[in-house]
Order: sequence, then C-alpha cells, then structure tokens
Amino acid sequence: MNASLLRSTIYISALCGLYLSVAMFLPAIVDLYNGHDDWQVFAMSGVMVGGFCAAAALATRGPPPVFNKRFGFLLVNVLWLVFSIVGAIPLFLAEYNLSFAQALFESISGITTTGSTVIVGLDDLPPGILLWRSLLCWLGGIGIVALGLFVLPFLKVGGMSIFKLESSETDKPFARLASFTRAFLAVYVALTIACAIAYDLAGMSHFDAVNHAMTTIATAGFSTHDASFAFFDSNTILVIGAIFLAICSLPFSVLILLAVRNRLDAARDPQILVFLGYLCGISIALAVYQHLRNGVEMSNALIHAFFNMTSIVSTGGFASDDYTQWGPFAVLLAFFATFAGGCSGSTAGGIKAYRFVVIFNVVRAGLSRLVYPNAMYTVRYGRVTVDAETQRGVFLFVSLYIFLWVVGSIGMTLFGYDILTATSSVITALSNVGPGIGPIIGPAGNFSTISDPALCLLSLMMLLGRLEVLTVLVLLTPVFWRH
Amino acid sequence: MNASLLRSTIYISALCGLYLSVAMFLPAIVDLYNGHDDWQVFAMSGVMVGGFCAAAALATRGPPPVFNKRFGFLLVNVLWLVFSIVGAIPLFLAEYNLSFAQALFESISGITTTGSTVIVGLDDLPPGILLWRSLLCWLGGIGIVALGLFVLPFLKVGGMSIFKLESSETDKPFARLASFTRAFLAVYVALTIACAIAYDLAGMSHFDAVNHAMTTIATAGFSTHDASFAFFDSNTILVIGAIFLAICSLPFSVLILLAVRNRLDAARDPQILVFLGYLCGISIALAVYQHLRNGVEMSNALIHAFFNMTSIVSTGGFASDDYTQWGPFAVLLAFFATFAGGCSGSTAGGIKAYRFVVIFNVVRAGLSRLVYPNAMYTVRYGRVTVDAETQRGVFLFVSLYIFLWVVGSIGMTLFGYDILTATSSVITALSNVGPGIGPIIGPAGNFSTISDPALCLLSLMMLLGRLEVLTVLVLLTPVFWRH
Repeated sequence: MNASLLRSTIYISALCGLYLSVAMFLPAIVDLYNGHDDWQVFAMSGVMVGGFCAAAALATRGPPPVFNKRFGFLLVNVLWLVFSIVGAIPLFLAEYNLSFAQALFESISGITTTGSTVIVGLDDLPPGILLWRSLLCWLGGIGIVALGLFVLPFLKVGGMSIFKLESSETDKPFARLASFTRAFLAVYVALTIACAIAYDLAGMSHFDAVNHAMTTIATAGFSTHDASFAFFDSNTILVIGAIFLAICSLPFSVLILLAVRNRLDAARDPQILVFLGYLCGISIALAVYQHLRNGVEMSNALIHAFFNMTSIVSTGGFASDDYTQWGPFAVLLAFFATFAGGCSGSTAGGIKAYRFVVIFNVVRAGLSRLVYPNAMYTVRYGRVTVDAETQRGVFLFVSLYIFLWVVGSIGMTLFGYDILTATSSVITALSNVGPGIGPIIGPAGNFSTISDPALCLLSLMMLLGRLEVLTVLVLLTPVFWRH
Repeated sequence: MNASLLRSTIYISALCGLYLSVAMFLPAIVDLYNGHDDWQVFAMSGVMVGGFCAAAALATRGPPPVFNKRFGFLLVNVLWLVFSIVGAIPLFLAEYNLSFAQALFESISGITTTGSTVIVGLDDLPPGILLWRSLLCWLGGIGIVALGLFVLPFLKVGGMSIFKLESSETDKPFARLASFTRAFLAVYVALTIACAIAYDLAGMSHFDAVNHAMTTIATAGFSTHDASFAFFDSNTILVIGAIFLAICSLPFSVLILLAVRNRLDAARDPQILVFLGYLCGISIALAVYQHLRNGVEMSNALIHAFFNMTSIVSTGGFASDDYTQWGPFAVLLAFFATFAGGCSGSTAGGIKAYRFVVIFNVVRAGLSRLVYPNAMYTVRYGRVTVDAETQRGVFLFVSLYIFLWVVGSIGMTLFGYDILTATSSVITALSNVGPGIGPIIGPAGNFSTISDPALCLLSLMMLLGRLEVLTVLVLLTPVFWRH
C-alpha cells in the first residue's frame, strides 16, 4: 500500500461524491415545484457536499496510478462508503427525527439496493425525500452491475472469474469497455422507462410509477407507501413488478447481448435456468400450499406467491401481502429463499445462482469420485471448465457468508432481539433483500423500532453482502497492507 | 455391484444382528431379577432375531470378498439399518403403546447416539427397557468410533483422509488393527466404569449410574428420568457429566495413545484445541450472559452453562435446565452449537472441529491469494498438508449437511410444525445431539407428540448424520450401482 494509491482512491471517490451531490438537485427541484421547504435541505446538501468533494478532488489530483488488485479492492470499499455517507446527509438534515445511524442505514439500504426502511408514514412524506430514496437505489443499481460485470471478475472474488473467462477470452464481447458501458446504460434506462410506463398504465400515479420503476429495476424494494405493493391492490401491477424484478435478476451481460446484438445464445448461461427453476419451483409450491391450506383461489395464490417470491430471490423486497401469515412452510421458504439471490452481473444480491451451479457440479463429481477415486471428473459451468481455484473461491464465499450470518445473528440477540428477528434481519441485510420474518421486521413491519447499535450492525452486513463479502474482508488481512 | 458383494454384506450384517440379539438377554435377566414380565419380551425377541440372523448367516456363508470401497459403503449402510431394526423390535413388542415408527425412531436415536426420546414417563418404566436403551447407545458408540477410526478414512468421506494420512503413513500406530481394536475397547470400557463409579459416588443409584455412564461415554443423551440431569439436582454430577462428555468428544485415537502409550504429543491434533476453544468460549459467554441478564450467581451459571453447552457440542444432549428460557442469546447459541459437534474418531456427531480447522485455513489462504494471486499458499492441518481433494471433501460434506438441513426443515413445516421446531429438530437429528429448541422438542420437551411421518424423516436424518452423510448419499448415485 503506498501514498499514490491512497491519493488516487480519494480522488476518484471525491469525483463520484461530486456526481452524487449533483443528483441532490433533482429532489430539490421536485420539492420546490411542489412547494415543500425540503428543497432547501437538498440544495444546501448538494452545495455543501459538492463543494467539499470538489475541494478534495482538486487537492488529490495527479497522474493515474497503475491499476492493480489492491487498488481495486481499496477503491470499491471507499467508493461505497462515500456513497453511503453522502446519501445519508440530506436524510439526516431534513427534519424527520432520524438519528444519524438511522439516516445512514436508510442510505446504505438504498445504495446497496436492499430496501429495508426505518421510516414510517411514507405516504405523507414530501416528494423530494421519496425521490431521493428511489434515486439512491437506482444509482446503486448501476454501481452494482458495473461492479459485477467489470470489477469483481477482474478481482477474482468468490468464483467470479468464471465470467471473466467466459466473456473476455472465449467471446470478447466486453473488449471495448466504453461501448459496453454505453450499451449497459441504454438497457438500464430503457428498462426503467418501460417499467414506469407499464406501472403508469396499470394505474399508479405518475410519481409512484417513476419511483417504483427505479426501485424495481434496481431490485431494491423502497416504496412510496408503507403498505408497499399492497397499497395498489392490483394484480396487474403485481405481474408487471414480478416480470421486471425477474428480468433485472438476470445477468446484464446477457440482457445486453440479447437486446443490442440479438444474441439468443447468450441466454444459455446455466445460472439463468437454475435461477428461473428455483424461482418457479418455490412460487408454485407456495401457491399450491396457500390454495390447499388456506383455501385461496389458485390464480390469486399464484400471482401473490410469484410476486412475493420473485421479490425475495430477486432481492427486491417488495411485499403484496404478509406471506408470513400463510403458514410455517411459507415462512421457512421465504427465510431460506433470502439466502439464494439472483444471477451474477445483475442488481440482485444473495449467494447467487451460478454458485449453486458450481457447488452442485462439485458435489456430483465428488460423490462419483468416492466410488472411483482415480477417475477424472471435470467440473463444468456450461461449456467452461471450472478450475480448482474458482471452485475454492465459491466455497470461500459461501463459508464466509454463512459465518457472517451466524456471527451477526448472535450479535443481534445480544441487542435483545428474538431469534427470528435476529437471524432473518442479518440474512435479509447480507443478501440485500429488504424484509425479514417475525412481527418486527416481517413484510408487514419495518426497521423503525430497531435500536441504533443494531442498525449499525445491519448496515455493515448490507455493505458486506453488496460487495460480495470478500472485497471487504480482504482489507482486514495483514497481507493487504504490507508494502 | 455383484452378487458376491451383496451376499457378503448380508452375511456380515446377519452376524452383527446375531451379536445384538445376544445383548437382548441382558435386559431380560435384569427384568427377570426385578420380577418384571418384560423379560419375556426381551428373551423372545432375542431368540427370534437370533434365530433369524443365524439362519441368514448360514444361508449366505462363503469365501470373503475382496474388500473395496463399494463394498465398504454398502456394508456400513446395511449394518446400521439392521442394528436400527433389530434394536426397535423389543421396544415395539413391549407394551408401551409405541407405533413401529416410534420404536424405530427410539432405536435409531439410541444406535446413532442421538438421545432424542419419544417415551414419556421414563421414571416409571421397568429397568429392562431402560437398560436396553442405554445399551443401544453404548454399542452404537463403539460402532461409531470404529467407523470414524477405521472405515471412513479409508473411504475418504468428507475430508476424513487427513486422519488416514496422519495415522497410517507418518506414524503407523494403527498398523496392527487387532491390537488397536483391543486398546480401543479397553479405553472405552475403562471410561464407562470410571464414569459409572464417579456418578455412583456423587449420589446416583447404582442403576442410574450404570445407565448414565453408558449414555455419557457414547455422548448419546438417553436418561432414565424425564427430567434428565435436572432430576439429580447436584452440581457435582453435572461437573462429572461435562468432563466425561468432553473427553469422549476427543478423538479416541488420541485417547488411546495417551492412555496406552503415554504419548502426550498425540494431543497436539489441532482439532482438540479448536474444539475445547469453542466449547469454553460459548460456555463462558453464556454464563456471563446468564449472570448479567438473569442475575444467576456466577459459579452456578458457569456449571450449568458448561454442562449444557458441553452436552450440545459433544452431541450428548442431556439437559440440566431449560436453557432456552435464559434469553434469545442462549437459544441462538444452542441452535448454532448444534451444528458444530466434537472431534473426528469420537462418539460425537455434527460438522466436527477438524472441518472448521480446514475451512478456516482454506479461507485464510484464499483471502491472501486475492491480493497475491500468484503466491503459493499451502493449506495445512497441523503438520499435514491438506491437498485439494481433501479440501473439496470437507466442503462437499458441509454443503450436503446444510442442504439436508434446509430440505429436512422444509419437510417438517409441511408436516405442520412451526419454524423453530422444524429447523431445530432436523439439525438436532442430523448432528445426533438430542434436544432441539422451542416448546415441543426443547430441552424441557421430548419427541412423543411428533407424528409418525415426521419421526421417519428425523430417523433418516439421524442415520444420514451418523454415517457422515456422504456414506449414505453415495448409494443414490447411478455410478455406484454400475457394473
């Protein structure tokens, strides 16, 4: 670690902070237009943060450093930290009686596209603050996809090198980074507009449609109503939401190849089939359970099951109903689904489908090897061979993921929370889903009564999960800081 | 798979069933001496099973087959199945209103040294049946240690080959199998006698002392009283129990080298330090919590915390108190401790300490490798290098362990059980611990109200856990049955 890397890290973070401060003028304008005094908070925050970031950027200008892995890890961590703090500033300064821990939690929840909220009474809030929450999610979504497509495969985090191989060596679709970034932004914006129009046509107000579209495409889960999607009481809206959530859980590299180059073969990525497989599997199982146990009409049961389960595995975290009241099977399914997550290179979090593919293939090969120890069994991911190093990367990730869940849950019980709240709050934070289970943070609840120390723990878990755990933990190794 | 292997499997299983039928005459004699009619059930079962097994053995005599891995896997599975069924016969035939599923569950719970019971009113049962339950545990314990020391390292199940390497190549203490077996049985019997004498001196009746010694040394958890160790209300007995449970969670190979050859260096096995580390860590943490939160006097809190936590991580499953009433931290600690288990080559179940050592070292190497991808990082277990194959074996095991827990828990919710009962019943079965959490199967409860289909699921989990998961699942692969 040397001074030049630190300087460059601060420089790039300050620049990104500056961009985020510019975004604050959007809610300022909306509040001003609607005659809410809050516009001053956003304008002032924008000027303050912008000025500070501009000064920091000027002070740390200099020749760009050689981009190496160490710089990559440091930059990613500092960037997300800066976004989190900058995002929290207007939430803290506006007069909603949020403690700084609460404002930071809300900001991190947005920027990591988690969607857990500490705010009650969303329906009565001025539009600026609601838009700011949605914007944090939407911009966070861009950051996450960029991270998953460009940075993590290069850093070889948690078996992500599979996608480096697939894309950069056999296929070269990402060779021209700039054109790929443009294509990604085009797809991201197009999906957001399409989703907003669909919501609008299905009956949402313009403002609700825009906000929900932003948080849907980012699979984030912030709503403009305390009741989330239950507020609209419309099956059409649920179907639209489920479809867009599912789409945004797919790898954006695939979406881009499909949309921009009409490459249908891109959809052969094995994780897509596995993701859609478990999504449909648990949704149908839950709908049948809901139909047989509670006598809910099948079509209605299917729509609600699909919406809520898509919402969990896409790590969206909206709710159309308190599914934890459907019975123990529904509760446990929702709980375990919180670990699963979507595909790599999407806005979804969680353990992610491609890791299940790798683990399944390693297990299959391992069982065969027990009988024939000398036979060769290659572990494959689609047409790519998964080397031992990548397999280890996947297990490394999953081990640490479970370890963090265990330690975090025990921590939550020390803050006095019951076992359901403790275990589900930590996994919903780590997987960036949103709601947990139990009466406090379940789909009918929120995080407003959670104490500040507990919110700090959960904020840390959201960041850890969002940065694929290893990216953060690597900073704790002595070897990282050695000269 | 060929006919000769199947024939030999039946032959050896029949012989072992014959031995177990002979053991039935012990409770028969005890009941006859105490004037209970139950002696007839045991005598009749002994004659019936013995006759059947003798006939089967005679019919399948023949030259011994070449011992290969496939034969090993098949034999281990069939042996444990035969033990389970034979053990259940007198429990079913005696008039305690047990369904066959309940009798089978009780038998499997004994033979796998789990110690979950479906019987209420233990205090009023005739001595024969109580002795039979304890005997199943004690004999099961012998089988498990033999499996862990001799069979699983050979079959390379779940990373067990570490211990094959350590023992058979660098050290050769197991070279002479017969003398080692004698040494093991001597240590096992000596520990049982020492434990029985200690319990007796501390105030248990002779009969209670013998029964509890047998189930303590097997880390099984069957008691002769519904209240388990709370019945005796003696801290001395708790301390004795905790010490013997902890000893029997250590690798018997180490105990033998210590006892028979005074080899102190044998205790340097890293898993011993790790096991004792987490045992002391959670016990002290729990005692401090109990002291601070509930105002329990510290020495008393320490003794109860140590006894109950040792009981869980040794997978003994006795209880001196309903620790789930101590607060959410205690509940969650007990829940996660249920996964942990003791050392390999002991009577304990669970994931086991040596696997945590391997995972920790793989994670440490993996994090360093993220920064310096080209540096060589060797994963070690003590002085032994853990090759990639063995690392994979460990992850394979843990992945399947967690997978079975997830699937089993979901299954239990379909039988109508709440989420705490569902998740904890499956992990307590899989780890062969005994009690779960929640009002039904918690330390103050038992399995008497669990429905027959659910008991069958849990019985399967006990067998899967006891045979280190892979030993059973390998039978489900097509490659196993291929000619």
